[in-house]
Amino acid sequence: MTDAQQFASDNYAGICPEAWQAMDLANRGSASAYGDDDWTQRASDAFRDLFETECEVYFAFNGTAANSLALASLCQSYHSVICSAQAHVETDECGAPEFFSNGSKLLVAPTESGKLDPQAIRKLATGRADIHFPKPRVVTITQPTETGQVYTIAEVEALSAVCRELGLRLHMDGARFAHACATLGCSPADITWRAGVDVLCFGGTKNGMAVGEAVLFFYPALAEDFDYRCKQAGQLASKMRFLSAPWVGLLESGAWLSNARHGNACATRLAAAVEALPGVELMFPVEANAVFLTAPETVLDGLRARGWRFYTFIGGGARFMFAWDADPARVDQLISDLRAVAGASAGTYACAAA
Amino acid sequence: MTDAQQFASDNYAGICPEAWQAMDLANRGSASAYGDDDWTQRASDAFRDLFETECEVYFAFNGTAANSLALASLCQSYHSVICSAQAHVETDECGAPEFFSNGSKLLVAPTESGKLDPQAIRKLATGRADIHFPKPRVVTITQPTETGQVYTIAEVEALSAVCRELGLRLHMDGARFAHACATLGCSPADITWRAGVDVLCFGGTKNGMAVGEAVLFFYPALAEDFDYRCKQAGQLASKMRFLSAPWVGLLESGAWLSNARHGNACATRLAAAVEALPGVELMFPVEANAVFLTAPETVLDGLRARGWRFYTFIGGGARFMFAWDADPARVDQLISDLRAVAGASAGTYACAAA
Amino acid sequence: MTDAQQFASDNYAGICPEAWQAMDLANRGSASAYGDDDWTQRASDAFRDLFETECEVYFAFNGTAANSLALASLCQSYHSVICSAQAHVETDECGAPEFFSNGSKLLVAPTESGKLDPQAIRKLATGRADIHFPKPRVVTITQPTETGQVYTIAEVEALSAVCRELGLRLHMDGARFAHACATLGCSPADITWRAGVDVLCFGGTKNGMAVGEAVLFFYPALAEDFDYRCKQAGQLASKMRFLSAPWVGLLESGAWLSNARHGNACATRLAAAVEALPGVELMFPVEANAVFLTAPETVLDGLRARGWRFYTFIGGGARFMFAWDADPARVDQLISDLRAVAGASAGTYACAAA
Amino acid sequence: MTDAQQFASDNYAGICPEAWQAMDLANRGSASAYGDDDWTQRASDAFRDLFETECEVYFAFNGTAANSLALASLCQSYHSVICSAQAHVETDECGAPEFFSNGSKLLVAPTESGKLDPQAIRKLATGRADIHFPKPRVVTITQPTETGQVYTIAEVEALSAVCRELGLRLHMDGARFAHACATLGCSPADITWRAGVDVLCFGGTKNGMAVGEAVLFFYPALAEDFDYRCKQAGQLASKMRFLSAPWVGLLESGAWLSNARHGNACATRLAAAVEALPGVELMFPVEANAVFLTAPETVLDGLRARGWRFYTFIGGGARFMFAWDADPARVDQLISDLRAVAGASAGTYACAAA
Repeated sequence: MTDAQQFASDNYAGICPEAWQAMDLANRGSASAYGDDDWTQRASDAFRDLFETECEVYFAFNGTAANSLALASLCQSYHSVICSAQAHVETDECGAPEFFSNGSKLLVAPTESGKLDPQAIRKLATGRADIHFPKPRVVTITQPTETGQVYTIAEVEALSAVCRELGLRLHMDGARFAHACATLGCSPADITWRAGVDVLCFGGTKNGMAVGEAVLFFYPALAEDFDYRCKQAGQLASKMRFLSAPWVGLLESGAWLSNARHGNACATRLAAAVEALPGVELMFPVEANAVFLTAPETVLDGLRARGWRFYTFIGGGARFMFAWDADPARVDQLISDLRAVAGASAGTYACAAA
Repeated sequence: MTDAQQFASDNYAGICPEAWQAMDLANRGSASAYGDDDWTQRASDAFRDLFETECEVYFAFNGTAANSLALASLCQSYHSVICSAQAHVETDECGAPEFFSNGSKLLVAPTESGKLDPQAIRKLATGRADIHFPKPRVVTITQPTETGQVYTIAEVEALSAVCRELGLRLHMDGARFAHACATLGCSPADITWRAGVDVLCFGGTKNGMAVGEAVLFFYPALAEDFDYRCKQAGQLASKMRFLSAPWVGLLESGAWLSNARHGNACATRLAAAVEALPGVELMFPVEANAVFLTAPETVLDGLRARGWRFYTFIGGGARFMFAWDADPARVDQLISDLRAVAGASAGTYACAAA
Repeated sequence: MTDAQQFASDNYAGICPEAWQAMDLANRGSASAYGDDDWTQRASDAFRDLFETECEVYFAFNGTAANSLALASLCQSYHSVICSAQAHVETDECGAPEFFSNGSKLLVAPTESGKLDPQAIRKLATGRADIHFPKPRVVTITQPTETGQVYTIAEVEALSAVCRELGLRLHMDGARFAHACATLGCSPADITWRAGVDVLCFGGTKNGMAVGEAVLFFYPALAEDFDYRCKQAGQLASKMRFLSAPWVGLLESGAWLSNARHGNACATRLAAAVEALPGVELMFPVEANAVFLTAPETVLDGLRARGWRFYTFIGGGARFMFAWDADPARVDQLISDLRAVAGASAGTYACAAA
Repeated sequence: MTDAQQFASDNYAGICPEAWQAMDLANRGSASAYGDDDWTQRASDAFRDLFETECEVYFAFNGTAANSLALASLCQSYHSVICSAQAHVETDECGAPEFFSNGSKLLVAPTESGKLDPQAIRKLATGRADIHFPKPRVVTITQPTETGQVYTIAEVEALSAVCRELGLRLHMDGARFAHACATLGCSPADITWRAGVDVLCFGGTKNGMAVGEAVLFFYPALAEDFDYRCKQAGQLASKMRFLSAPWVGLLESGAWLSNARHGNACATRLAAAVEALPGVELMFPVEANAVFLTAPETVLDGLRARGWRFYTFIGGGARFMFAWDADPARVDQLISDLRAVAGASAGTYACAAA
């Protein structure tokens, strides 16, 4: 990888100072293993404070496992999980939800925007009612979505209403949950359990940690024996304090939110600049830390020639993701380079048209 | 937990300086995700150098997953895995091997010492040959065993010979592999692939890391698609560098070995002191970093009264495990306390007998 | 259910005389269990004669299990299976393929006709090549398809060519395999292993048996330990002769083919009649024992009023399936009733238009 | 296999007249598929009548699946199942319980007799209470045991009392349940739900059917979505009437009980004869249709020389199992042959001793 900072993924960032410092402090002396330590207690309490409720808190190593274990705990192998066609569990987990649940099928709603809506849920949940098709039991939504859109409180409430009506559990994949909170400016409680979410996977890795996600059960009965489930599935850390202490660092300092705000702000800054550029278009509303844009291939090639790396999509799209450590000067450099290549490209077009 | 250092488990220790420093260095700037980074390449190469062979190297979060995934890759659900009755996979993984393999049965050899021998393998592997019983395909040995005994090179060779004869793969659970190498004083290659081991799980957590184990396949064909297996099972770290860099710290500095030697030396020191104590007996030969001893309950109570914590076993046994950071002064304190309470106890007996 | 014969499903039929007689003969005296009996040997040999090759033959209780076990034997949990969006494994097996394989994902090709084509396979097989998506390893085709279309030999050869090129195995779900053979008039070998099929599930239930399917592996290496797989998955019959003897009855007498021809002929008869009816259209080419037709709702209601039962589909379609025992007089009655209600309906339209 | 009837297994028998006749009657005309037919309704009602309760009834193809599915419905993968070391689920199902449950571990009680007792359950259920070991949730008992001993009502009540106390479900593997009822002379209700059994697998195959077992849930809540579970696991018969009608034949005629009585009587007859024979000993009390005996190898060889087949066990044991169709004349022939070879053998001994 080149030395200059890239915005291809928010997984490219390192550990933020607050998380690092907490790990450093946790690394003084000995501590009991498997979560029976002060840091883990303190992290769990910090979550309960933040969410203003006595939720059950578990720590998993990554989002693949956190989401898959949470979904597996909400259904049996002959049940199904309703998700968006763009959901990470469907597109980028290599069949992990099916593996952890021993065969639960994902029912995919072909949403345009990546956001599920009550109609799509109702259609999938009621389309089949015979034993030849796995019975829908869970809905999973990604907050924000893979393309960076944020569900409003009202939208989540509408989803949970249809879930309750149809006997479905509501799971939230919050790989970038903090970014959604930053956008909404609401209490984490408002967009989760108060809006009807049963289980939340709160992403730590993209929020500034080295590794780790938290699984929050808002109804204790749903968490029954979840500790055994984690252990059996290889998700119980022996030196748990190093998985929990960074959460103490993030949550107690408020860095969980400021980190997310910073990433969001960088995305907004790029989005604002894009709007004025000829031939360059935003593919999705920019509501979190991601910017997806379409541009002529010459423009993308021009960016590449100037050293930028990014994922591309069908139709000429490019994705930029801004982490907690995104350097504003590099963002401005990206904007500047984009203007330069887009302007040159537009000029070429103008000449060609003349 | 009390402030004073305890020897109840080598999972109570923190991160050693070499691993910590490597994480610190890895935390400079951005890096590609999912293992496509320089640290991961360097760690993999360090393993290949250490083992003097072009092995395939994978990183998992913990030993539960590393061992279970490795075993699952060596058999199908209707196959079985031969292990000792004391093996961690049998006694302390909450059914993880069965879960990852979707049902492979562990065939347990009732060994006295915790060490498997060729006869036990042969008996279990040839006892049944009908389809009503899962077909044996893998043997797993723990090096050193749960109770701290080390297989010699000749012993591993004898096991691998019977494995080859019977069409079985040989897996080594090396949660404390470094301690075995420290004891044997041999090259890691000599006690693994040169002795016929197919796959090794090399433990990092008990060797001074925060989290993480390495899975080494000595025959590339056995590793086919193992990266997919890890991903699906929730064992692929996005910020992989923080799982691989500590290995660079351990392996390049030699700390992997010096850490193990230190733990072993502490155990040997305690063992030597125990031999002279009336009523206190070693339960197993001390060949690694563990000491299991039996003592009158009054002795154990005396230790507890002086603030010591340890796991106890049937028959009055107590386990002490020494990590990379075991404080020699605390070991001596333990010895001193043990002498005091054992002497007092012996005196009591003497009085009672007189 | 009403007394009069229905054509809603070919699962409504009973046991054909040839299968029944073989069961009767098998029910004389004792026989060894679990397939170590003469009937099972004879049925296996009859398959080898019919397919003109030394294939490996296994017997499973139903199609769900036969197909799922065959697919599971061809891939691992982190692999994927390419199928048509109309494939039974995708739409009507309640997640059985995912369950038996412990998580293999089905990649669904949105084919118009229900037939897979080489382009669809290539697109799905090469669309992703990263470990975040399950690696394609198997293609499954249904012969004939759920809607009754038959792959020609050339079509299967074209599919197997792309499979071989891309390292994929080719599985054929032959729940109504006999009907395809009846249509093609070819040797079973020509449309299977000679055309590049690796594994065939040959349906017995829809061919006149009470219960049972055969799994044929054309390459012995693929069948390694498949007997253990069947046993573990609850698919090994203790009194196996009653699962194998009906196959002897079907195969040695030629009833497997004449039964299928009869069903096909009934479908063709209905299809021919439909072509002349105003407002009634065939939804798919009729190439096996199924007829799918669209008709005004008044027509369908008219049929229902006359006592007919059938499955309906989106857009007004109705399915009729003809089993080995379809009574030609009842087929003619259906045709006659259809003409009556369609004519009346057309008259209504004509009046309305006049 | 030789023409003369053997008593090596009660799986060698065919279909009894009552079951056959019911299949024949069921094979008249068409019937709805997947259990929506009169025969299935009638069979379910017959079970409810026999057990004097509104139990939920499901039909599976064999005992492997019936028991494994029932156990899987009572626990999760990280739970464990307590059974006897002689239990069929442990010794002869090729890991099926682990497969269907996705990893539930069997905790094996080393009982002498094959019968579990409350102390053994308590010890296994309370031995570990940490998340590193799968949490006990179910007890399974075999009635009668593999070696033919019958739990009394009081014994089952004692087991269920400890299960209730410890939060465990009680499952009964009734592969030869009818034989236990014949021995006890009690109502099926008395030895199942009235004694605290939660789920019963009632064996049809060994009771005179071609194939098929019934799973009875005595508490409807435990049966939630069990139909989906059966479907996904390949245990839903499309032509269900052929799996359910034989039960109508057995239950309505009383053949279920008379068949079992006959088998038991043959075993008792052999047992009585054995008692008088020098050097031949019963290994277990004969309480059902099995006789296990030890005899000098010369005696067993003598039986073999006279054409008898039987399974042998360590220590010179031989097993004889009597099915519904055991020919009394052949039983007498066996007794006569046994007397002849045992007498000759005893004579040999006498001569040698003289």
